[in-house]
Amino acid sequence: MDQKTRLDKQMEFCREIDKEKEVFRQSYLCSGSRHENDAEHAWHMAIMAVILQEYANEDVDLLKTMTMLLIHDIVEIDAGDTYAYDVEGLKTQKEREAKAADRIFNILPEDQAKKMLELFAEFEGGETAEARFARALDNIQPIMLNDASDGKDWQEKGIRISQALGRQRLTAKGSEVLWKEFSKPLLQRNIDRGHIIGDISLDEFDEPEE
Amino acid sequence: MDQKTRLDKQMEFCREIDKEKEVFRQSYLCSGSRHENDAEHAWHMAIMAVILQEYANEDVDLLKTMTMLLIHDIVEIDAGDTYAYDVEGLKTQKEREAKAADRIFNILPEDQAKKMLELFAEFEGGETAEARFARALDNIQPIMLNDASDGKDWQEKGIRISQALGRQRLTAKGSEVLWKEFSKPLLQRNIDRGHIIGDISLDEFDEPEE
Repeated sequence: MDQKTRLDKQMEFCREIDKEKEVFRQSYLCSGSRHENDAEHAWHMAIMAVILQEYANEDVDLLKTMTMLLIHDIVEIDAGDTYAYDVEGLKTQKEREAKAADRIFNILPEDQAKKMLELFAEFEGGETAEARFARALDNIQPIMLNDASDGKDWQEKGIRISQALGRQRLTAKGSEVLWKEFSKPLLQRNIDRGHIIGDISLDEFDEPEE
Repeated sequence: MDQKTRLDKQMEFCREIDKEKEVFRQSYLCSGSRHENDAEHAWHMAIMAVILQEYANEDVDLLKTMTMLLIHDIVEIDAGDTYAYDVEGLKTQKEREAKAADRIFNILPEDQAKKMLELFAEFEGGETAEARFARALDNIQPIMLNDASDGKDWQEKGIRISQALGRQRLTAKGSEVLWKEFSKPLLQRNIDRGHIIGDISLDEFDEPEE
């Protein structure tokens, strides 16, 4: 492949991913003014990876972690945002996202498409140090926004802590410190304020699942 | 400083930068549906750094380049977006942005504030391989959007190529390939289509200034 053809494919990919800015999430911005989109969410987490890396349970390759965070929601351009508590949507999420990854990353030249697909699969698999830390940040960032916006999204949906914990307890797999010192007290404070329904005790989930 | 105090400062910074999602730029999204904001712009460029790194004139530290791109517009939370062709705004931009950097990055613990301030200064200085490549991407990304949205922003403002080139020619300092193979033909195409006023010939600026 000549340079021009290669560059054309790369720039086509760069234009294609612009659509991620129009995929909106359930979380509100800290100000509560509007919902956040996927591109903003990814940007926010990549900076959080830089700032919070010292709390990862294991040594992480920061470049890999950041790249993972920046690209993992690109699939939502086709597959849409699947809300963390949408039981029906979650059933088909993997399949819809795999198809999207195949289409979008394959706009790139083959060598880069392969790398991006591997990185996306690694994030989804959650079985490397980088994926575990990235997924912890992917849990922390929305609850940080939710807390800052007075639990607006949680209150609108009547979220129970038993629903939130299914996902939030995974944070400890990437960072015990961020779970114990940030997420857990934040969730408890929002139960105390009535922003999340406290149907079970947070301490029941103090340890991550094996 | 104990861990709790340190983490509190880091999370305060993470919440503070959420405001970057509400700083809007002049560029439209590729779809032309609305203006882009700074957080989206930074996200887009960080991925472009990953995809286009092979075209940097010099070897670059990708992690450093990406971090620079992700954080360099944080100052606009206080200083606002200064349009590339706003002559009056440009006069006070440096001072406004330095003050903003001082306030916002110093929310972080001292060691991290120092690193972020250094990285921001390095980007602004434009005198390292990473800063040159990062600034090339900072020029390429908006013209890519402008081109995709049929020159909407250029047409609204009646931009002349002599104005655009002052900034765009700097792209070659970071990447000769991206200037010659991407930016230059893109600008020429938009002159030919009447999206940019062709008041001078592009070839007059083929070489970057010394």
